[in-house]
Amino acid sequence: MIADYQIRQLQAVVGEGNILTALEERWCYAFDATDHTQVPAAVVFPGSAAEISQILRLANRYGFPVTPRGAGTGRSGGAVPAPGGVVLVLTRLNRILEISIEDMVAVVEPGVITGRLKAAVEEQGLYYPPDPSSADFCTIGGNVAECAGGPVAVQYGVTRDYVLGLQLVIPTGEIIDTGARTMKGVVGYDLTRLIIGSEGTLGVVTRIILRLAPKPPARQTLAVGFPDLEMAARAVSLILRAGLAPTALEFMDRTTLDCVREMLPFEMPLELAALLLIAVDGHPHDVEERTASIARFCREQGAGLVIQARTPVEAQGLWKARSVISPALRQVRPQKISEDVVVPLSAIPRLVAALQEVSRRRNLPIASYGHAGDGNIHVSVLYDRKVPQEREAAHRAVEDIFSLVRHLAGTLSGEHGVGLTKAPYLEMELSRDAIALQQRLKRAFDPNNIMNPGKIFPPSAP
Amino acid sequence: MIADYQIRQLQAVVGEGNILTALEERWCYAFDATDHTQVPAAVVFPGSAAEISQILRLANRYGFPVTPRGAGTGRSGGAVPAPGGVVLVLTRLNRILEISIEDMVAVVEPGVITGRLKAAVEEQGLYYPPDPSSADFCTIGGNVAECAGGPVAVQYGVTRDYVLGLQLVIPTGEIIDTGARTMKGVVGYDLTRLIIGSEGTLGVVTRIILRLAPKPPARQTLAVGFPDLEMAARAVSLILRAGLAPTALEFMDRTTLDCVREMLPFEMPLELAALLLIAVDGHPHDVEERTASIARFCREQGAGLVIQARTPVEAQGLWKARSVISPALRQVRPQKISEDVVVPLSAIPRLVAALQEVSRRRNLPIASYGHAGDGNIHVSVLYDRKVPQEREAAHRAVEDIFSLVRHLAGTLSGEHGVGLTKAPYLEMELSRDAIALQQRLKRAFDPNNIMNPGKIFPPSAP
Repeated sequence: MIADYQIRQLQAVVGEGNILTALEERWCYAFDATDHTQVPAAVVFPGSAAEISQILRLANRYGFPVTPRGAGTGRSGGAVPAPGGVVLVLTRLNRILEISIEDMVAVVEPGVITGRLKAAVEEQGLYYPPDPSSADFCTIGGNVAECAGGPVAVQYGVTRDYVLGLQLVIPTGEIIDTGARTMKGVVGYDLTRLIIGSEGTLGVVTRIILRLAPKPPARQTLAVGFPDLEMAARAVSLILRAGLAPTALEFMDRTTLDCVREMLPFEMPLELAALLLIAVDGHPHDVEERTASIARFCREQGAGLVIQARTPVEAQGLWKARSVISPALRQVRPQKISEDVVVPLSAIPRLVAALQEVSRRRNLPIASYGHAGDGNIHVSVLYDRKVPQEREAAHRAVEDIFSLVRHLAGTLSGEHGVGLTKAPYLEMELSRDAIALQQRLKRAFDPNNIMNPGKIFPPSAP
Repeated sequence: MIADYQIRQLQAVVGEGNILTALEERWCYAFDATDHTQVPAAVVFPGSAAEISQILRLANRYGFPVTPRGAGTGRSGGAVPAPGGVVLVLTRLNRILEISIEDMVAVVEPGVITGRLKAAVEEQGLYYPPDPSSADFCTIGGNVAECAGGPVAVQYGVTRDYVLGLQLVIPTGEIIDTGARTMKGVVGYDLTRLIIGSEGTLGVVTRIILRLAPKPPARQTLAVGFPDLEMAARAVSLILRAGLAPTALEFMDRTTLDCVREMLPFEMPLELAALLLIAVDGHPHDVEERTASIARFCREQGAGLVIQARTPVEAQGLWKARSVISPALRQVRPQKISEDVVVPLSAIPRLVAALQEVSRRRNLPIASYGHAGDGNIHVSVLYDRKVPQEREAAHRAVEDIFSLVRHLAGTLSGEHGVGLTKAPYLEMELSRDAIALQQRLKRAFDPNNIMNPGKIFPPSAP
């Protein structure tokens, strides 16, 4: 625990109004979007990189852990506090410092809501592509910490592909700049990309330079229903290889569809067991041509329904149904364990078939949906924690899924990170030598292990 | 120096036929594409990751430095041996292990010639975009070590954007895998991207998993002449912001043009002082439309000549002239110092104007050309080393250029790396705290500093 005199030193850094110590207030920062909870010893709202530097120096002096946090929408427990630690809430650092049309960059603080940034950029005729489903509430700092993706990653890539440079307070308190305001840069080690996806364990990002793209002149959206999931999965693979360059290529299985069917802006016949949502960006004629090709292609592959959104509002309706899947699945069971595994493109049909097998074996509903276009499938194991055998079966199912994914040469996480939830499984993917190297790297940044300890590495790791 | 019994141990690892010790043979591996030379103590040609692991363990035991090398086409001295060290030539590891159409990945060894890989991939109807001008001779391992780019980076990005995973022998000899065979992956720290651009200082890459793209159905090439360089630079900036999404957007100034004018497949009037070479990829109709828009746009911006290649052979002729610039510049002066600085997009006109100013001040010809579309300008200071005042003035000019670039919020290198040549200038870009962190990171990989020492970090650094 953190002592009173240490709290007073924190108060001196950020001001009395920017620290919470009452239990009921600390409870509000005990969790993220997982089911893990840990009440922090204090919650601090720093106002600048200089304040964060002082806080981290105190943490090193007194040995208390510090967990940075944006909006707490993470799905792997990355923002769940360490026992006895301080939560560093970055919501005061919420300024869009600059949007430069000439340089096609934005400079922002980590607490900016991703959706707000996207809207501000679009007002200037430019485009910030990454679009995690939580874009309306998550922060860009969290996106950097986890390397967030979203549906349009198929064409545009993930957060990593847009971060040109960072300002970072490293765990020992120094404030450094990484990268540059330029489209390219290879001077020194690529600390920028090392920090992206490091889940708040290597420092606190305090400023982000983002590359912007031109706003695509046109976008079309298709909804395509297939009688079975394997057929849909095969269509995905063929669309990609045909060079039809979809912007987004999302799928939903029957369990998922059943939860959002009523929200769809069209009648989805019950005999259709899989839905693809496809977006195509580009210049208007080109978009029309490619959308028509994809539609024709899907019909040839056995699609039972092909609907093209006629207006942006109709398209929005389709995407809205996609973005509420995660909460909607609670209709089936009150609890869910959500994983975001990725497999090589050719393995998608085998994965979706094998997931149905796991569901039967463990006698639990499993919903799969998500970014089929890059092999990044969101798998939700649905269960009721009040039913002990379901709770147990859910954890067995997760192990089955991870084994399956590794067997298919896949990875345990495409965009959610390891955090707390996947740390026990890290050795299923990384060798002991690789983990040992990563730990040496962590110590090079954080010799006293004060930055978000307990994340990424398995509890058993030395 | 390395002792005879150590040489014998190296022979035992790789076989007698795979080590060179005679002075005249070692001389052949004393340099890369810079003017730096250092004769190595031995040249070793390992045949596997396991052999490399043993070599690195010997290096740690006896304390001799090891410099990995591909084709030696690097422009920053990265492959120039360390004094008394061993050169590890990776040309025997030259197999394309797999090209998977289904997964859209290739798995290759580091010694594969980039152009050979590109051709093999295109035979399968896919595309590996990065296209450094040395693609016909450089190796993919060297591309990874430096994060090579090339003209099409404007649309497709650089080597970093295509590497999904690596097999790596770390300096202490462990063989580890990073990344995955999947389009996304965020498990653990991003060692893959940390290794990319680390210039052979953090380990030896022995296998590379590359993402492939669909082959673009069509490409058009335009050559556009402008009466002055600033006008051309402004056109670049406007084309990018207009969302016309060029694939490549290269420029040449007058000095450069004068060296390649005779190779151009069309008459380039002498009064035109700047040339843009523009490629547009995509679906046929779309490419036609956008190419026409760019041509119209350039004419509106004052272009004196707009030529569209009518056949792929004509287009090849245009790009051929681009790819021989570097050697062609030797017509002006026997020596050149080539830098590949990058500035924010809006600063391109100011940079090219200021470079002419540096040329006047230092009384030396300076040629600039290259990747205007991402602000990555190749600046060549041309001089004769037999003229002492030119030698001195050339180094002053480089300092002027770096100061200028930093003043414009740019970076000292976009794709060539720091190596030996830019190490003395590292502190112009990175703070002492950032350099110290990078050195701790280096030590986490390489506690005995055996991997390519003397590169990246300034000689003065602790």
